[in-house]
Amino acid sequence: MAQKGDLLSVRHDIRVVDATIRDGGLCNDFRFDDKFVSDLYKANNKAGVDYMEFGYKASRDFFSEDKFGKWKFCKDEDIRSIVGDAPSKTKIAVMADVGRTDFENDIIPKNESPIDLVRIATYINTIPAAVEMIEYCAKQGYETTINIMAVSKARTEDIKAALNILGQTPVSAFYIVDSYGSIYPEEARRLADMYGEIADKYNKLVGIHAHNNQQLAFANTIEAMTYGASYLDATVDGMGRGAGNCSLELLLGFLKNPKYKVYPILKIIEEHTSKLKAQGVKWGYDIPYMLTGQFNTHPRPAIQFVKEDRGDYFNFANELYDIINS
Amino acid sequence: MAQKGDLLSVRHDIRVVDATIRDGGLCNDFRFDDKFVSDLYKANNKAGVDYMEFGYKASRDFFSEDKFGKWKFCKDEDIRSIVGDAPSKTKIAVMADVGRTDFENDIIPKNESPIDLVRIATYINTIPAAVEMIEYCAKQGYETTINIMAVSKARTEDIKAALNILGQTPVSAFYIVDSYGSIYPEEARRLADMYGEIADKYNKLVGIHAHNNQQLAFANTIEAMTYGASYLDATVDGMGRGAGNCSLELLLGFLKNPKYKVYPILKIIEEHTSKLKAQGVKWGYDIPYMLTGQFNTHPRPAIQFVKEDRGDYFNFANELYDIINS
Repeated sequence: MAQKGDLLSVRHDIRVVDATIRDGGLCNDFRFDDKFVSDLYKANNKAGVDYMEFGYKASRDFFSEDKFGKWKFCKDEDIRSIVGDAPSKTKIAVMADVGRTDFENDIIPKNESPIDLVRIATYINTIPAAVEMIEYCAKQGYETTINIMAVSKARTEDIKAALNILGQTPVSAFYIVDSYGSIYPEEARRLADMYGEIADKYNKLVGIHAHNNQQLAFANTIEAMTYGASYLDATVDGMGRGAGNCSLELLLGFLKNPKYKVYPILKIIEEHTSKLKAQGVKWGYDIPYMLTGQFNTHPRPAIQFVKEDRGDYFNFANELYDIINS
Repeated sequence: MAQKGDLLSVRHDIRVVDATIRDGGLCNDFRFDDKFVSDLYKANNKAGVDYMEFGYKASRDFFSEDKFGKWKFCKDEDIRSIVGDAPSKTKIAVMADVGRTDFENDIIPKNESPIDLVRIATYINTIPAAVEMIEYCAKQGYETTINIMAVSKARTEDIKAALNILGQTPVSAFYIVDSYGSIYPEEARRLADMYGEIADKYNKLVGIHAHNNQQLAFANTIEAMTYGASYLDATVDGMGRGAGNCSLELLLGFLKNPKYKVYPILKIIEEHTSKLKAQGVKWGYDIPYMLTGQFNTHPRPAIQFVKEDRGDYFNFANELYDIINS
């Protein structure tokens, strides 16, 4: 394994992706006020953030517009009402789940849309459906990435087979997604190396999307980066499902390319995410998330524990053992 | 650089050091109730923790007993009232600051004391005074370690010179101390390798004491470990000055030696540290600590900011720039 650059290098392959509205939306059912989204878009432009993910392109057959805010659906007109028509430095991304996106209707030709990048989220067993979506979106003119979720539960030989299939599509990058926040820096390096070897063969890049269950989201992100990853997901104040994500302000403070600036993001924390927290929206490292991370399992029971304001960590650990083994 | 072991190895050189009362005492002036300290001692024994640090052996010429709780001074009789006389698996440690310890009076012969290990804390410029203390404590019969603080501000050639002097003393281990929480995993590995090379020459071990300013305390601890460190400092719920430390529960959940168990520590969080937090004792990752970490500077202004319940992060970052450059 070889490092790409050192602590003072500027790596021009790096793309910082702000996923605050998308992953953070999982904490508040995508109910952000327009001022937050608009301020964040402006801050991302100032901070040098390369992409801002606005939410999901979810199918309205699966999710009701009564139950979720508009960023669950990311209609083109809603994005345009935030970003306007002027060209900007920060590109626009949305996430599209395999199997729950009505892509043939909702993903219109790129030249009619403010969206630049469609991030296709899949599990290892739905790769052929992901390939279909990649090819559809590419044909419509979009950049695409593929986010293979729950990598800590996937077998190495399956990941390699999947990446070799995906290498033959127009996708730009293969994402390592640590959905359960269970991987360690040593594994982040190894995965970056393994993904990178196949990516190089097909002239693709590698990305990382980390969760903070074990306070390792930032560490795993920069370690994967050091060993080759280029697309780096982060969110303001780590906002995201359960233990949340790699904090954008930690990442921007680490990167050496002078185009990246942490200050505009501090303003967003001050004016927006701190307020959400004060209003009771919950995310971030906590003991039950640590336990689901250590157990390499979905954070669902931990989210429930935190929601119920329980504090009996010992019992929870005991219950978790049964949940996983039942 | 070579890894020592992999993610499934049991490393018999590992010593987990619980520093909750000592580093955590900096958050509440060492005012822990006896039940906390006693429960923690029992939990550490059950959890397989190798050492429990009870506090400082501070000189009463420098610090008043009216202003601080008893664990600032760690009188032998106070420790004995917690641990009794029965032999236990967890050994007892105290910290002694170079220049602020009346060691010739306060550190009595080991055979009259419950203390096993004296951890001598020094800056790079007071190594000769540290050597004097190591030799004194060793002569009294104690194990010793040397904690060279603020390593991120020390020059490599000075660190090497210091370690070569310390190698000739009876000290057991050289500690990497990231006082400002500013080092990255890549640097933790490099420091572990550099300390380890000199340690090997003198048959010493290496330790790491990390701070969580950039959410890297756990990552840096396990990375330094993977590249050779044996003494690993951690605290319950990361309790410690400012952003706090490596969380003991994260570390115990990571280690593979079956003697280490996380469950007893969950009980301590549930019954003690959660309550301290609810009572308003403050520690843990927060934006101002992130900034002092990124700036590689003492957390003092950040501690003040948090104490004052300020939320204007942008102004703080701006002020910090002036504080550091004035």
